[in-house]
Amino acid sequence: MAFSLEDIAQHNSSSSCWVIIKNNVYDVTDFLQEHPGGASIILKYAGRDATRAYEPIHPPDALTKHLPASKHLGPVSSSAVQTLVSAQQNRKKTKDEVRVEEAMKQRPPLGRILSLRDMEAVARKVLSHKAESYYSSAADDHVSVTENARAFSRFFFHPRVMRPVGKCDPSTTILGYKSTIPVFVSGAALAKLGHPLGEVNITRAAGKTGIIQMISSNASMSYAEIAAAAQPTQPLFFQLYKNADNAVAEKRVREVEALGYKAICLTVDAVIPGNREKDMKSPWIVEDLERGTPSVHVEGEGDSDEAKGFGTAGALIAADDKDMTWEKTIPWLRGITKLPIMIKGIQCVEDAVLAAEAGVEGILLSNHGGRQQEYALPPLEVLYRLRKQRPDVFGKLEGCEGGVQRGTDVLKALCLGATAVGLGRAFLYAQSAYGEAGAVKIINILQREILTGMRGLGAASVRDLKPEMVERVDWESSERAKL
Amino acid sequence: MAFSLEDIAQHNSSSSCWVIIKNNVYDVTDFLQEHPGGASIILKYAGRDATRAYEPIHPPDALTKHLPASKHLGPVSSSAVQTLVSAQQNRKKTKDEVRVEEAMKQRPPLGRILSLRDMEAVARKVLSHKAESYYSSAADDHVSVTENARAFSRFFFHPRVMRPVGKCDPSTTILGYKSTIPVFVSGAALAKLGHPLGEVNITRAAGKTGIIQMISSNASMSYAEIAAAAQPTQPLFFQLYKNADNAVAEKRVREVEALGYKAICLTVDAVIPGNREKDMKSPWIVEDLERGTPSVHVEGEGDSDEAKGFGTAGALIAADDKDMTWEKTIPWLRGITKLPIMIKGIQCVEDAVLAAEAGVEGILLSNHGGRQQEYALPPLEVLYRLRKQRPDVFGKLEGCEGGVQRGTDVLKALCLGATAVGLGRAFLYAQSAYGEAGAVKIINILQREILTGMRGLGAASVRDLKPEMVERVDWESSERAKL
Amino acid sequence: MAFSLEDIAQHNSSSSCWVIIKNNVYDVTDFLQEHPGGASIILKYAGRDATRAYEPIHPPDALTKHLPASKHLGPVSSSAVQTLVSAQQNRKKTKDEVRVEEAMKQRPPLGRILSLRDMEAVARKVLSHKAESYYSSAADDHVSVTENARAFSRFFFHPRVMRPVGKCDPSTTILGYKSTIPVFVSGAALAKLGHPLGEVNITRAAGKTGIIQMISSNASMSYAEIAAAAQPTQPLFFQLYKNADNAVAEKRVREVEALGYKAICLTVDAVIPGNREKDMKSPWIVEDLERGTPSVHVEGEGDSDEAKGFGTAGALIAADDKDMTWEKTIPWLRGITKLPIMIKGIQCVEDAVLAAEAGVEGILLSNHGGRQQEYALPPLEVLYRLRKQRPDVFGKLEGCEGGVQRGTDVLKALCLGATAVGLGRAFLYAQSAYGEAGAVKIINILQREILTGMRGLGAASVRDLKPEMVERVDWESSERAKL
Amino acid sequence: MAFSLEDIAQHNSSSSCWVIIKNNVYDVTDFLQEHPGGASIILKYAGRDATRAYEPIHPPDALTKHLPASKHLGPVSSSAVQTLVSAQQNRKKTKDEVRVEEAMKQRPPLGRILSLRDMEAVARKVLSHKAESYYSSAADDHVSVTENARAFSRFFFHPRVMRPVGKCDPSTTILGYKSTIPVFVSGAALAKLGHPLGEVNITRAAGKTGIIQMISSNASMSYAEIAAAAQPTQPLFFQLYKNADNAVAEKRVREVEALGYKAICLTVDAVIPGNREKDMKSPWIVEDLERGTPSVHVEGEGDSDEAKGFGTAGALIAADDKDMTWEKTIPWLRGITKLPIMIKGIQCVEDAVLAAEAGVEGILLSNHGGRQQEYALPPLEVLYRLRKQRPDVFGKLEGCEGGVQRGTDVLKALCLGATAVGLGRAFLYAQSAYGEAGAVKIINILQREILTGMRGLGAASVRDLKPEMVERVDWESSERAKL
Repeated sequence: MAFSLEDIAQHNSSSSCWVIIKNNVYDVTDFLQEHPGGASIILKYAGRDATRAYEPIHPPDALTKHLPASKHLGPVSSSAVQTLVSAQQNRKKTKDEVRVEEAMKQRPPLGRILSLRDMEAVARKVLSHKAESYYSSAADDHVSVTENARAFSRFFFHPRVMRPVGKCDPSTTILGYKSTIPVFVSGAALAKLGHPLGEVNITRAAGKTGIIQMISSNASMSYAEIAAAAQPTQPLFFQLYKNADNAVAEKRVREVEALGYKAICLTVDAVIPGNREKDMKSPWIVEDLERGTPSVHVEGEGDSDEAKGFGTAGALIAADDKDMTWEKTIPWLRGITKLPIMIKGIQCVEDAVLAAEAGVEGILLSNHGGRQQEYALPPLEVLYRLRKQRPDVFGKLEGCEGGVQRGTDVLKALCLGATAVGLGRAFLYAQSAYGEAGAVKIINILQREILTGMRGLGAASVRDLKPEMVERVDWESSERAKL
Repeated sequence: MAFSLEDIAQHNSSSSCWVIIKNNVYDVTDFLQEHPGGASIILKYAGRDATRAYEPIHPPDALTKHLPASKHLGPVSSSAVQTLVSAQQNRKKTKDEVRVEEAMKQRPPLGRILSLRDMEAVARKVLSHKAESYYSSAADDHVSVTENARAFSRFFFHPRVMRPVGKCDPSTTILGYKSTIPVFVSGAALAKLGHPLGEVNITRAAGKTGIIQMISSNASMSYAEIAAAAQPTQPLFFQLYKNADNAVAEKRVREVEALGYKAICLTVDAVIPGNREKDMKSPWIVEDLERGTPSVHVEGEGDSDEAKGFGTAGALIAADDKDMTWEKTIPWLRGITKLPIMIKGIQCVEDAVLAAEAGVEGILLSNHGGRQQEYALPPLEVLYRLRKQRPDVFGKLEGCEGGVQRGTDVLKALCLGATAVGLGRAFLYAQSAYGEAGAVKIINILQREILTGMRGLGAASVRDLKPEMVERVDWESSERAKL
Repeated sequence: MAFSLEDIAQHNSSSSCWVIIKNNVYDVTDFLQEHPGGASIILKYAGRDATRAYEPIHPPDALTKHLPASKHLGPVSSSAVQTLVSAQQNRKKTKDEVRVEEAMKQRPPLGRILSLRDMEAVARKVLSHKAESYYSSAADDHVSVTENARAFSRFFFHPRVMRPVGKCDPSTTILGYKSTIPVFVSGAALAKLGHPLGEVNITRAAGKTGIIQMISSNASMSYAEIAAAAQPTQPLFFQLYKNADNAVAEKRVREVEALGYKAICLTVDAVIPGNREKDMKSPWIVEDLERGTPSVHVEGEGDSDEAKGFGTAGALIAADDKDMTWEKTIPWLRGITKLPIMIKGIQCVEDAVLAAEAGVEGILLSNHGGRQQEYALPPLEVLYRLRKQRPDVFGKLEGCEGGVQRGTDVLKALCLGATAVGLGRAFLYAQSAYGEAGAVKIINILQREILTGMRGLGAASVRDLKPEMVERVDWESSERAKL
Repeated sequence: MAFSLEDIAQHNSSSSCWVIIKNNVYDVTDFLQEHPGGASIILKYAGRDATRAYEPIHPPDALTKHLPASKHLGPVSSSAVQTLVSAQQNRKKTKDEVRVEEAMKQRPPLGRILSLRDMEAVARKVLSHKAESYYSSAADDHVSVTENARAFSRFFFHPRVMRPVGKCDPSTTILGYKSTIPVFVSGAALAKLGHPLGEVNITRAAGKTGIIQMISSNASMSYAEIAAAAQPTQPLFFQLYKNADNAVAEKRVREVEALGYKAICLTVDAVIPGNREKDMKSPWIVEDLERGTPSVHVEGEGDSDEAKGFGTAGALIAADDKDMTWEKTIPWLRGITKLPIMIKGIQCVEDAVLAAEAGVEGILLSNHGGRQQEYALPPLEVLYRLRKQRPDVFGKLEGCEGGVQRGTDVLKALCLGATAVGLGRAFLYAQSAYGEAGAVKIINILQREILTGMRGLGAASVRDLKPEMVERVDWESSERAKL
């Protein structure tokens, strides 16, 4: 049974709401109130084709997982397909799409990208306004995100000379899995916003170069697609956003365990949406740009509070568990999986100690890339305090993430005791700019910078990186502060 | 008996000076020397209609209170009314008025205001030059006002994770009165400069949202009008500028006590006018703008010292008591009112201790928004010193004001021990931009930010905010410093 | 015997060099090598009228003092006078003169000058390039001069409240002489570069307002002219640049003692010229501006080292004593005068102690306004160290100078223990912009700011200003840092 | 036997590669893989004239030293010479060459250069893009190079007064050799990139002014040419980059010892190439500039990794010893030469101690001008820590280099205990701008600044410069920070 566009167009309200996605019709009437992103965004497409809005932010299995089979109504008619294709072809490009197309043509040759900063600069130009806003947005006034990076500017090296570094090995192990360099890919959502192949670009790059990727619960590819893109022995970690409903959460964990993921990284620093104003403002800016004039206040009109939705980020975690505790949540997780557990999002010494006491396999210092709590102490500073106050916790410490841009940043964290360092946005930018090759490129850059730095410091292996090789100074480098 | 414009025009000098205000004639000859703003500003309107200059900076009962009934000469004639109306209608708008009108049309939709900074940006555009200068001016080079805000950039959080924050309550009590969030409206003068409904906009917003407003002695609405705009159980506090004449001061206190105000906040940081150059320069800038060319020096002409008046601020407090002491003033105030007393304007630890010893009910750390003493230590820094040096004083500490722009600012002060935090200018800006809805909007923004921050810190109630959750660091956030 | 221009023009070389100054002819052949500013600058005018170049930088008695009577050849002929007058009248104005004339017309009304910064801004525009360069130039990269002012941005107040300040007296005494405010005029050379009446403008302003002026050895008016401009009981201090030849130095001291000067301030921080590049570059910039194209290097041409002269500053002190010592110089000075001695130019705690031990009456912390030793510690910082390390020296400390722009700056120095604070450039700027009225104006501004600040701090007299009322903080005010 | 251009053109591939250099033909086929700069740069000129590319970066004896005599095939034919000359004459200048020529004409007169900063500004304009990039490039984000200079902004003076400084002697000795000022020329490669006479300009200037030059192993003139340019008793030091092959390294040491060089300065901070992105990007920028449009990415094209070569710097040290140790390398060096040994490139206190224990004659604190390890502690800060932690090492300390721009910088290092201070880039810039006269000029500037500073500090000889005359403050000078 195939539907005509006219049939579908009848169901254009909250009382009966159908949408077309990839030439199939779905009845989402009952789902409207459950949609994490809110009903209104769906209702904009009620009775119509929603494919273009749906696709970049949902994994392919989202409909299967969240909508009962009975609501999968079936395909549109073949003439409807033709109409939709033709509409798509004749669609006038938006101003932002035209800008992006031009920027793609102007990208420099990949061989001329020398640093992660070069890569980010290209990505910022070729991303859609929406994607750039989602990737780069952070809490409030972007203090936390800026300070994460800036923290590195207060740590200087005591390089050692006359040490043999002809042979130099930057490899390490994370939760027991080998990594060619002490760097992993942090969980980061919605890679498809930047490139059609999304997270898979990064998976393939990680496989080729021998590093570990952490897959977000909110990935825009399905966990299975990503697993399929990995090489046979390539380890993948899973970043768990725990649903408030334990059954839903358990199902998610069991799915990835079955797919062969190697560890569960429980996110604890994002139980509620951060206040990401850049993300929230993005649709308004795009709208005003397209229309050519700014929106203005209409006297007497109430406060529609357009920001209520908390932007893209808010939608993703609306159903998450806001009441996790050490006593309750860790034993529950232990009970449903044999995988090692890493706590992602520790932001102070006291909680690092509690995590160690809770018996988890790994601790990841992180403030969610500065996207959640404004004025959270930068992870590098937490690491520094931990080194001074509780060196006993370092047996569990597996990582530190936030603000890393250079090989020297990685080495500072390692000197202070981190096993490895995570990068998130850098990979989103790299795959947005050049796909898989972009992701490979920045891993190669980091490897070269790490090797250069280790040799410059007189370290032939990661074991040679010691706390006394970094000094926290009482000024900061002005050049870095400009970034 | 109704006056013709010709009659009135005869009385145009200091020997006999009549003015028209809202179609009534007043003989202000004897009052000229008592006028806090000086005689010269009145003489500009001698024999003429002064309504437009008078209204935005005087409460409606100012004439009743300050001018004997015998000097209220009566209404102008009906033909005079027509002439005045017609003159008003045909009056050519000034360049500044034209600019303001255009700016009002360009205001963004209220729903797109996401932060207090967004709100301030709109207000700065739609305010008259005079109002913007009065609201934003501060002492000397604006060091104190800038440092008040900047102080927050040196305090970072130690956010706690794995604590239940599904239910989160930001309410508190101030001097025993309930507030839905730990924020109150500080006393701030002359709200009518920004909006015809002035302080009443804020009173209504506070009533709707459940927070407490402090009314300035120098409000531009009468204390009674403001009380009338409040909801039945809505508490109002009174900010007392004590007149040098105890009898005058007592009358003022008894008036507000009779009107149902709940507390007396004695201002101690503004016994003389601050040096607010922006405010003093405003009329010259407006004058030069209107004429189209800058004023120039005429050789041989003496120093007219146009600044003598100390601007708007100076006029308001000219008659205030410069010789208050703990020994004399507190017992006097205690003797004339049963209301709780809060000392507003404590700027160092030593005086906080003296205030506590003087037995007052509340202490408010403040440097008058940086408008009085240049280089006064920022209130947040005083709070930090008080926490370290005299934690015993915190039983009396009710607040801290100055520089607050974000929910995280409020939370930092609460972690350090403040009960609540006051904002003044933010409310003047909000009501100037969007009236009552603007004031409601910023309370809602603060509530959302406070809730987000409390959850991000792992605090389910204000009691969970502890000193160990903030750290004063040895750098400061660069983003905030740009504000 | 009167000379014709033709006669004079014969003597246009170093073997016979005559110049005309104010219509009189002088034979300076023998003096060429002694001229502190070098022979070449005189030779530019050999055989010609040198009045315009001579006058702004020499006191009227310079010729009498330095050239034997036999070299005063006599007046030019009356027809020569006419020719000179006519040449002067027809002279085409330089581009810089035209700019200055226009700037003078655009000066704002004096009444609109609210701060010393406002005054400096006007002066910077109306000064000739040469004068602006001489006044504002400082050592090397202007670090010392900038840091002198910036030091104040690290000192904040603990203002006290509830103290009677209705009556407030800012007066003090300096070396036993009364001053209406704790401010004096520092010695500063060449006031005539900025205004034809030069130092006398300041003398009259000091007399009218009751403050003390220190007269530089290098004043551009004669010591007698300045003394004559003072009021009968107005005290003048003398800033002694000691000549290497004790006899010359003694003559200078005896002259001012005879003229009634009240103290000798021995300059010890300027035995050699500072490296003032702005001053040295000024003539080149003026020359290039006048010609309209920049000068360029001629290949093969040697290094003429145009900078050899060390600019204006170098010329003034070329003959000064580079070998002063505590043991030798103080007893010598004591032996030739009964006047109290103040040491001007102490730059560290150790030397303040030595000065006190040497038995002088006063110590003035100063680094010559940042014009001599680059990276000399700012005087306010020296004062702060002295307060902490050697409070016993404060019996002798009379002052601190360098970087003062606001009344709050004065009060900070007084809280730390200074008796008074000196300003130099500020007075040069003020008299350049508005003559005597300008100098009066800034004294009035300082008085108002000091009174406002004392009341804001709760101090009714200078004795109430205490060290515990200032705190040296670990940040600095950003606004001030922009100056 | 003379070759025709046609003959030579046959040999244009890696299987047979001939090049013409200064009208002689060389067979470099076997040498391609050994070329430190890589084969590809040679192959660009295979079968053609390579003189223009070869000359500015190779000393004249490079061919003799590195290519067996059998590969020196002989001269080109006389008609070929004519063709080459004519081709050279008719060659169209590149845009960068045209820019440089114009900039050379606009240089200011040498006499107007007042500071090293003035000199650098001229040089930056007249250098080719390639040379400017090589000279000014540094590691990563230029943090180390910037911080080297900025470190000086945190050290202030305690100038002493009343000390005789009429006679003032700034001379010292370095490794026993007299220097007129406490400054030497650091080893710096490729001076010919900036001026045809290259290092010889500096040698002659050093000879004339009496200071010591250190010659880089990678000088663009031959060691013999440089020695020949020196005056009979003028000492030259040799900066040794040790080849991984001890035999090659020994040959180099014996060569310079035979030429009369006085010391061996073993470079220990540059065993691998630094990451100098500015240098790596330079050819791309020049290429794009010449073509007029930027290069863009071609989809599907792999990552050519144009940066593999590590730029000019990488080529120079490709064959160097990456496995030096104190135990092995110092005894080896001691065994092959009688010259005193200085270790150049100590970057922390621990290694300064090890160097002293290894018995070398001198220690030079340096981080290679910030060109190698990013975030290496600035040498001045290392010196400061050494002074506080290990004052016993100062018997060996001969120098400190990095970031010096002013005489006051030199004096700060001397106060802290350095014997002398090295400058590298400053001399490259000076000789690029004005040849030998430029190099003389900056020595004279430094001498004048050092003399001015010594007198300003009350020091009549370098022995009078004491640690207590500098204070490391807790802020930094803003002016300097702008550099």
